[in-house]
Amino acid sequence: MPITVVGLDGDDTLWHNETRFILTQGELRDLLHRHVPEADVVRNLFETEMKNLGMYGYGIKSFTLSMIETAIQLTEGRIPASDLEVILGWGKRMLMMPTELLDGVEPALRELSTRYDLLLITKGDLFDQESKLARSGLADLFLGVEIVSEKNAGSYRGILTRRGIKADEFVMVGNSLRSDVVPVLEVGARAVHIPYEVTWNHEHVPEESLPKSGWFRLESIAGLSRLLAGL
Amino acid sequence: MPITVVGLDGDDTLWHNETRFILTQGELRDLLHRHVPEADVVRNLFETEMKNLGMYGYGIKSFTLSMIETAIQLTEGRIPASDLEVILGWGKRMLMMPTELLDGVEPALRELSTRYDLLLITKGDLFDQESKLARSGLADLFLGVEIVSEKNAGSYRGILTRRGIKADEFVMVGNSLRSDVVPVLEVGARAVHIPYEVTWNHEHVPEESLPKSGWFRLESIAGLSRLLAGL
Repeated sequence: MPITVVGLDGDDTLWHNETRFILTQGELRDLLHRHVPEADVVRNLFETEMKNLGMYGYGIKSFTLSMIETAIQLTEGRIPASDLEVILGWGKRMLMMPTELLDGVEPALRELSTRYDLLLITKGDLFDQESKLARSGLADLFLGVEIVSEKNAGSYRGILTRRGIKADEFVMVGNSLRSDVVPVLEVGARAVHIPYEVTWNHEHVPEESLPKSGWFRLESIAGLSRLLAGL
Repeated sequence: MPITVVGLDGDDTLWHNETRFILTQGELRDLLHRHVPEADVVRNLFETEMKNLGMYGYGIKSFTLSMIETAIQLTEGRIPASDLEVILGWGKRMLMMPTELLDGVEPALRELSTRYDLLLITKGDLFDQESKLARSGLADLFLGVEIVSEKNAGSYRGILTRRGIKADEFVMVGNSLRSDVVPVLEVGARAVHIPYEVTWNHEHVPEESLPKSGWFRLESIAGLSRLLAGL
């Protein structure tokens, strides 16, 4: 079946995201090393985030709370409140940053929107994602926006059913094998993987565990239109 | 037109919410009074929440971040990190609490679901609201769930359009005049106000600013079925 609906991930597919978390994580490491020079800040932060994921979900507010928790725990409560205030400020700075599109995104989406229905399908914090979309200048190109708390087969199936989309007419495009490819193949749709420069640990999937067919890889969104025309 | 679709708010309409925030706010006040006995903690917290609303949105994670910020600012950075860790713990406790339904909610919804399409329309943190719904045992009674970052005329209009619901067939039921009544009347639908025992400051609306018709008030959800049958 030819494709009629294209789902697009937001973070690290349309706009920069993970690099901002990495930048802030580096600042946290430098700040905490002043108190505990030997601490493995990045590993501890990741463990705290994973422990909290079931309570907090994804997003910058969750990340900020986990940074504060990591800072208190690694310093055994010795960190001054003024340093924690700095961490709070980093979270706000991340929330306020302008949405910075990846190269080629805007012309690619403009072109695709003339031939397909486009859906933004993104996970994370509702408020933050809506705000990023509003600041992206891309909102008008999407027929619909789906912000889900987790991208799994159930949530993709829900979106397709609710919108009356057949799985074989749908393709999902994103940077995460775990969130944008694996569960999409599970529901019988196709997927295009466009890797970002960095991938969050949590999103890593061993390549060999992926199905052999049903998905494609592109270096950049610029090639998407030609790929889809051939499906 | 007879009603065919009933929108229901979640927090403080179906399950207890605001009382939990008030409880935690009282604990924060007691904790901070040990450091700054004269401080007006509740007023300062509210001001911090309002200042942050445009960045954080609603929900427990936002509330937790604003509690930490208030604690640092009121103590001028003198609060020990161990106290801030206690505040982090309160946020987690709130996120983990079981969903406690208001009296009469379950039988009322079961009955209504046999005669109307029910939509849960709630604002706030996506992850937390989904989690509360899942734990409520009510999820199966709803035809759909809409979690929005803000309840205004635009978001109600979006929901009705997307779902092909005519405004005069729709009624919204909730505890907040600001979120569940005023914007619903604005889009030409009807509303039922069921006050909760307490109302968050931010949700207050002067009664005299409301339209004279198009909305109703009930003391409890138990009377909803009879009211709707008469519309």
